[in-house]
Parts: sequence; C-alpha cells; structure tokens
Amino acid sequence: MIDKDTRLCMSLAGRPGNFGTRFHNFLYRELGLNYVYKAFTTADLPAAIGGVRALGIRGCAVSMPFKEASIPLVDALAPSAAAIRSVNTIVNDDGRLTAYNTDYIAVAKLIESHGVPSSQRLALRGSGGMAKAVAHALRDAGFATGSILARNAGTGRALAAACGYDWRPELGDLEADLLVNVTPIGMTGGPEAMDMAFPADAVERARIVFDVVALPAETPLIRHARRLGKPVITGAEVIALQAVEQFVLYTGIRPEDALIARAADFARSAA
Amino acid sequence: MIDKDTRLCMSLAGRPGNFGTRFHNFLYRELGLNYVYKAFTTADLPAAIGGVRALGIRGCAVSMPFKEASIPLVDALAPSAAAIRSVNTIVNDDGRLTAYNTDYIAVAKLIESHGVPSSQRLALRGSGGMAKAVAHALRDAGFATGSILARNAGTGRALAAACGYDWRPELGDLEADLLVNVTPIGMTGGPEAMDMAFPADAVERARIVFDVVALPAETPLIRHARRLGKPVITGAEVIALQAVEQFVLYTGIRPEDALIARAADFARSAA
Repeated sequence: MIDKDTRLCMSLAGRPGNFGTRFHNFLYRELGLNYVYKAFTTADLPAAIGGVRALGIRGCAVSMPFKEASIPLVDALAPSAAAIRSVNTIVNDDGRLTAYNTDYIAVAKLIESHGVPSSQRLALRGSGGMAKAVAHALRDAGFATGSILARNAGTGRALAAACGYDWRPELGDLEADLLVNVTPIGMTGGPEAMDMAFPADAVERARIVFDVVALPAETPLIRHARRLGKPVITGAEVIALQAVEQFVLYTGIRPEDALIARAADFARSAA
Repeated sequence: MIDKDTRLCMSLAGRPGNFGTRFHNFLYRELGLNYVYKAFTTADLPAAIGGVRALGIRGCAVSMPFKEASIPLVDALAPSAAAIRSVNTIVNDDGRLTAYNTDYIAVAKLIESHGVPSSQRLALRGSGGMAKAVAHALRDAGFATGSILARNAGTGRALAAACGYDWRPELGDLEADLLVNVTPIGMTGGPEAMDMAFPADAVERARIVFDVVALPAETPLIRHARRLGKPVITGAEVIALQAVEQFVLYTGIRPEDALIARAADFARSAA
C-alpha cells in the first residue's frame, strides 16, 4: 500500500509502454520495497524533467523521442550516457540529476557474459538511437573491425565514423562473424514482422547472431540462427538487463537472476 | 496493478501526511478506478506545479505552506479558491490548471447539512489559512454577525475585516451561538492537546460547536460539547468531505456515503 514515504520512479516516452511499469512494480512487490513506478508522456520535456527534480522523483527512464533532448536538462552525464550522447535513465539524488544509458551498459554486459571475442568481425544493421548505443558498446568492448549497414547514408556514415567502422547500405558479400540487428525488421506488428535482417546464408556463415528486437521473444532471425545451432543474444535479454540496471540505479538493490527472469516474464506477458 | 494508462493524483505539502494517500487509494481500489495517489513535498513550487502540468498529473492537493504561492502558477481560479485567495486543490485538464479550495466547499456543505441557521452569532477562534477558509464559507453562507478571536492582531483584524466580523484577542464575555475552533488547540501531539479552545461555560451557553481539529476524532472541546448534549461538527467530517470533493473533481465520481465513511476510517487508522 502506498504511503507518504513511497518513492516514485517513472518513465517518459512519446508512446508509453507497459514493460517498465510492470517490471519495476513486480520487483518492488516481490522485494517488499516502498516504491511505485508509473509511465508518463509529455509535450514539455524541460518542465517534465524540472518536475522530476522538484518532486523528488527518484528515477526516470527516458525513451524516444527524448533521449538526446534530455542531455541539457540534467546536471551530469555518467560515462554510459556521455559515450553516446544519449540518455535512457535519469537518477535524482536530492535534486541533482545524473543521466545514464543502461542500453549501452546492458549490451556491454551481454557481450561479455556471452563470451563474444572482440576479434570477431562485426556487421551491425541500423543507425538509429539504439544502434548508436549498441555500436558504441561494441567498439568500447574492443571490437575494432566492423561495418554499419544502413540505407540512410547520413546517419549510417556518421555512426560508422564515430566508431571507426565502415559504412555500407547493404550487407552484400561482406563476411561477418557477429551479426547484429538494430532495426525493426522481425518486430511483432511491424511491416517486416516475417523478415530477417540478414540473408539466410550470411547467418550460416556467422558465428553468433544478436537481435535487439524484443518482441517476439524469438524473431525470424533468431529462430533461423537457433535452427543452425548458432549462439544468439536476444532483445529480450537486452530489455530485461537494461531494466535491471535501471532498477539497481534507483534502489541500490540487484535482484537474483531467477527473480529477474520472473519479472521479465511478467512484464512481457502484457507488454 | 499500475499500467501505462494509470492516472496519477498527488499532493504537495511541506510535511506530507498519509490521510490523502490512503483515502484516495482506498477509493480507487474499491471502485476499480485506474488511478494512483502519491504524496510529495518540494523545495521548488513553480517547477513542481510545472511538472504536474507537463506530466499530465490529473490532480494535486496543495497544503501548507503552498496554498497562497500556488495562485500565480495556475491558469484559473474556481470561485472556491477565488473567494479566499487560497488553493488546496489543482485540477489538470489537458495542461490547463484550475485551482479550487475544497476546505471552503466542505465547510459550506457541512454548515448546510447540519442545518445551522445563519442568524446565529458566531465566534471563530484562529486566523491562519484554514481559519480564512472557514470564516469566508460562513460569511458566504449568510452568517452576518460574528467575531474573529485571535491573539495575532494583524491576521485577526485582517480576517475580521474581510468578512465583516469584529476582532478580539479572546472570547472574554462575548455571547456566541456557534463556536468554531480553527487553531491547533486540542490536537493530538500538540502542546495544547488537553486544552479546549473555548471555556466550559461558553460551550454551555452555545447552541452548536464546530472544531476543525481532526486528530483526535474527538477533541476535548467536542467531548465536552457532546457531554452537554450540544450538536457538533468535527474536523473528521471536514477532512473527509474536503477529500471527497477532491475525489469528485479528479475522477468525476461521487462515492456512496457508506464507502466514504469506510475510506475515511481506513485513512485515519494510520494518519
């Protein structure tokens, strides 16, 4: 039951979803923490973040289209947000706002926990905000050789240049060990829900496949890679781990893996 | 369970209490409304109210010391707030903030529902923010003859002048039909918790006693009046009714009396 001492955490998104709300509130309840989580949108980002500060709201997840616009509104950027000039998490310490990017943190941790050698040649499809987080996490993990694949030459070239990778519009005959999809291809409800972001034969020649799409839990690309016996990293892992990192930043508590899995299942069941 | 469509209502107070949080959340749950209520404090009122607007927070209760300072921060004053230049409730209609004073509304309704004739001579002790709401509600209900009793000559004289009453520091030998206490005398935990705001013989000569103190549910003054068989209006009635009026403003729903009584009991049990 909420009382006067309950702490509020929240999210700001152009189109709020249910994942974060359900994930965090599930963990608060299971762990007996006096917190509550609520999703918001806004037409006035400076006033909304001013409200986070003035109301002592403990933490605020930031989604599209606010990830860059939040930067001048906080007091400090943690390395994860500074690395990519993109914010997905704000922590409020008594009125001082520090911005983080837990997508970047989550990708770095997953690359490490899956034991992907940084000598692998990388092909990353996409050049949006999330692609920026993933590409920088890979570069900062030591992945030196790679290509950004993006039809948008402007954002594609810029991201490639920032990371020291090359740019090309399509995979073509490129050989890559690590295939990474950071586009909506394969996403439930999207126009390319049945498609794969990489050709079947490129998957066959790759060593590992990483798809950031979280819905469905198994995209056509992941399904194909699994059929071929390839190791995979899924978007479901990214979304859960980035939410866990937010949870740790807000509460100082890192839940057990089994509890995190239950929270992610619960959150996904109505996302 | 909170989801992305849950609406937030809140309070702003220098020292947040539990009554509103428990009262509103109890009613949301009983009525199956997708709302949640949370108490806040702030060191930056303009940014806090800017946050209410920018985050689409549906309603905001305003307590000491923000009741006057909120006035320039809203878009419109309803008559209840305009009458006393004091705000205790803000309603957010798609970014347009309208301020109300449900203390004023509640007092006016209680005077009417208890059938107190406006011909009665009134003695009201107190000259703070709540005294202003009560005195104006009585004046606007037609109570033409009365005295404001206040040791503070500045605020006492000002309130008396605004309402067309006279001022005096103490009751003295004044004869009054309606005794109204709007000071902390008799309040649990206060330095005068065991005291009565009016002398025992004045209570004996009065026709009705109104004590705005809500904790304890029965102050020494109310207990004495009841022993003498006098009709009373209690602070518990005021606090519950003003909260009901807020609830109606936020949700458009007026709960049944029996449910309101249960909500008030629940809220008081840990206030």
